[in-house]
Amino acid sequence: MENSSSPKPIRCRAAVSRAAGEPLRIEEVEVAPPKAYEVRIKILCTSLCHTDLTFWRMKDPPALFPCIFGHEAVGVVESVGEHVDYVAPGDMVVPTFAAHCGECVDCCSERSNMCSRLPYRPGMPRDGTTRFSDAAGEPLHNFLSVSSFCEYTVVDVAHLAKVDPAVPPEKACLLSCGISTGVGAAWKVAAIEPGSTVAIFGLGAVGLAVAEGSRLRGATRIIGVDLNPDKFEIGKKFGITDFVNTKEIGEKSISDVIKEMTEGGADYCFECIGLASLMSEAFRSSRLGWGKTIVLGVDMNGSSISIPAFEILRGKSVIGSLFGGIKAKTDIPVLVKQYLNKELQLDEFITHELGFSDINKAFDLLEGGKSLRCIIWMDR
Amino acid sequence: MENSSSPKPIRCRAAVSRAAGEPLRIEEVEVAPPKAYEVRIKILCTSLCHTDLTFWRMKDPPALFPCIFGHEAVGVVESVGEHVDYVAPGDMVVPTFAAHCGECVDCCSERSNMCSRLPYRPGMPRDGTTRFSDAAGEPLHNFLSVSSFCEYTVVDVAHLAKVDPAVPPEKACLLSCGISTGVGAAWKVAAIEPGSTVAIFGLGAVGLAVAEGSRLRGATRIIGVDLNPDKFEIGKKFGITDFVNTKEIGEKSISDVIKEMTEGGADYCFECIGLASLMSEAFRSSRLGWGKTIVLGVDMNGSSISIPAFEILRGKSVIGSLFGGIKAKTDIPVLVKQYLNKELQLDEFITHELGFSDINKAFDLLEGGKSLRCIIWMDR
Repeated sequence: MENSSSPKPIRCRAAVSRAAGEPLRIEEVEVAPPKAYEVRIKILCTSLCHTDLTFWRMKDPPALFPCIFGHEAVGVVESVGEHVDYVAPGDMVVPTFAAHCGECVDCCSERSNMCSRLPYRPGMPRDGTTRFSDAAGEPLHNFLSVSSFCEYTVVDVAHLAKVDPAVPPEKACLLSCGISTGVGAAWKVAAIEPGSTVAIFGLGAVGLAVAEGSRLRGATRIIGVDLNPDKFEIGKKFGITDFVNTKEIGEKSISDVIKEMTEGGADYCFECIGLASLMSEAFRSSRLGWGKTIVLGVDMNGSSISIPAFEILRGKSVIGSLFGGIKAKTDIPVLVKQYLNKELQLDEFITHELGFSDINKAFDLLEGGKSLRCIIWMDR
Repeated sequence: MENSSSPKPIRCRAAVSRAAGEPLRIEEVEVAPPKAYEVRIKILCTSLCHTDLTFWRMKDPPALFPCIFGHEAVGVVESVGEHVDYVAPGDMVVPTFAAHCGECVDCCSERSNMCSRLPYRPGMPRDGTTRFSDAAGEPLHNFLSVSSFCEYTVVDVAHLAKVDPAVPPEKACLLSCGISTGVGAAWKVAAIEPGSTVAIFGLGAVGLAVAEGSRLRGATRIIGVDLNPDKFEIGKKFGITDFVNTKEIGEKSISDVIKEMTEGGADYCFECIGLASLMSEAFRSSRLGWGKTIVLGVDMNGSSISIPAFEILRGKSVIGSLFGGIKAKTDIPVLVKQYLNKELQLDEFITHELGFSDINKAFDLLEGGKSLRCIIWMDR
């Protein structure tokens, strides 16, 4: 017997990606009710992350079309499926591509943020299907378990964090992926000590968030590496003290330059671009004894990182960081609190704001290297 | 004015290596008195480590001939140079190839065992010269700051640990390099938690010492990987619970086998051979979330370790371990105490004992894979 209060399908607007590299189209779509362990969310705002861009450009799987992209967002719970008691309608939530079931061996360990009960799979995490269909009734693929380029979306309860509604939505939105990834890498993965020297390769939003996280952890020297000199002025706001412009070092390697600047190498080196060659340079830039290289970027060519065996022997290490070691339910609220306490800076990451119907402009801005984060408001 | 009690040169026997790969020759040599910060030691016994073998075979630098090899030993202080107050004549000491000045930023940090005041250089650590000359007065090269294939040697005070004389010399000797390297990698570098699953690639003395260290740290499953089935019986003594014979896995990769055995991968994987390809297999054998690969072997071809970037992103790490993260002066006495308390097993590593004049037999045994450690007694 159906309960009359059971959630019904919702018809609303989505920015649908029909083919690789083509502009998104605002279409009317149907969003199914949440199934067991699922939550339907009214998206307040979403923003654009490089990973959306990467998959949008990709002609072959893992990219799947037609698709509703977007995985950095904030919203309000509209309805919940069975077995959901973590949130209720009206709660403010941040969806995340990484699951946090809170019960598996990985979620229960302080050493891992890779939920082993709900590892990534295409489609909804528990059944691989989608909750979206277009006007013709054809399914639209889910993206990274979030699909936030839609006025309403359905997310598994393991893929969201409840946050203090005191935080402005556009700030909470940033914590959904990129900024948490960068701040988390400095906080949870590197666990930087006060007084440390840090080198950051690539000063996009994630790299700048690593700087912000390093600053919060008390690093005293933060070296930014990029080929765009504008990044240094921006970086100063996040604690970057020195800048290496890779276009201006002549015959020297980046690691030579950094080893000279730091008398032997940085304590922590972060690769935030996703170039295997740069990961090796980051490794070479780290100091003997305890130098740690943290890899955040994904090399989309599938290249491997090459590490000189004799150098790693002398006390160096390399560690990967997906989503900055962040566990959504426990760590995102901490970041929100730090923001509300005026410790963590978020405002400076927002360079543009647009209405939903202008979403393709956000793609242009990010592709052109003109924006850090462009907030896309669903109701504007 | 020379003090009449100042140490004089000593004439004694050494096993001199005159050319790459040729048998050592027992010769009479002269050992100069210790200079400032140096200690002259009467060697009680020495043993043979694979690194001696590697350099002895090497036709080009860094190998230098004629040379007095040997870097795993124990002895008694005969005399000391100026500014030495750490030891006095009569003290039992273990020399080490790695320095521990105790005062530099690395020695003062718990994160490093790579003394930055006295990084490795050929010859004596402070002036690059040698304290050995042959019967014709020609210099004989020092090896790894120890040169223990001689009845007396001179070692920098930073390169030795004073030990409790209650420990039998042949047991203390093992702590000078190989066994400390293996036990230390499990203890100081990996810091294995009780209940962990460990995989060890290569069951020579160092790999078996990793097993012993893992057992002491409470690992409950210790998988040994080798192509010699005899190693399993030996390994059981050091806590190895499972064995993978790389000759018997057919089409499967070692990492496939280990991932099946452990339902996803080991918590800690140790590479103890020095093959870059095996380092990658060790990495693949480690679990997502927190799997840690510890590299102990040196790839003598200079090959780099290849790490799949997407896999490291999901919480894996790779860390190098030279001398097992051991700091001679503070950590070797701890191992001695563990041995005396019957916690740490050392006796089982000694498979052969020889007199000094039979030293070439020790080379044959190690080359033939017949010995773990062969103790060479200087007075027999």
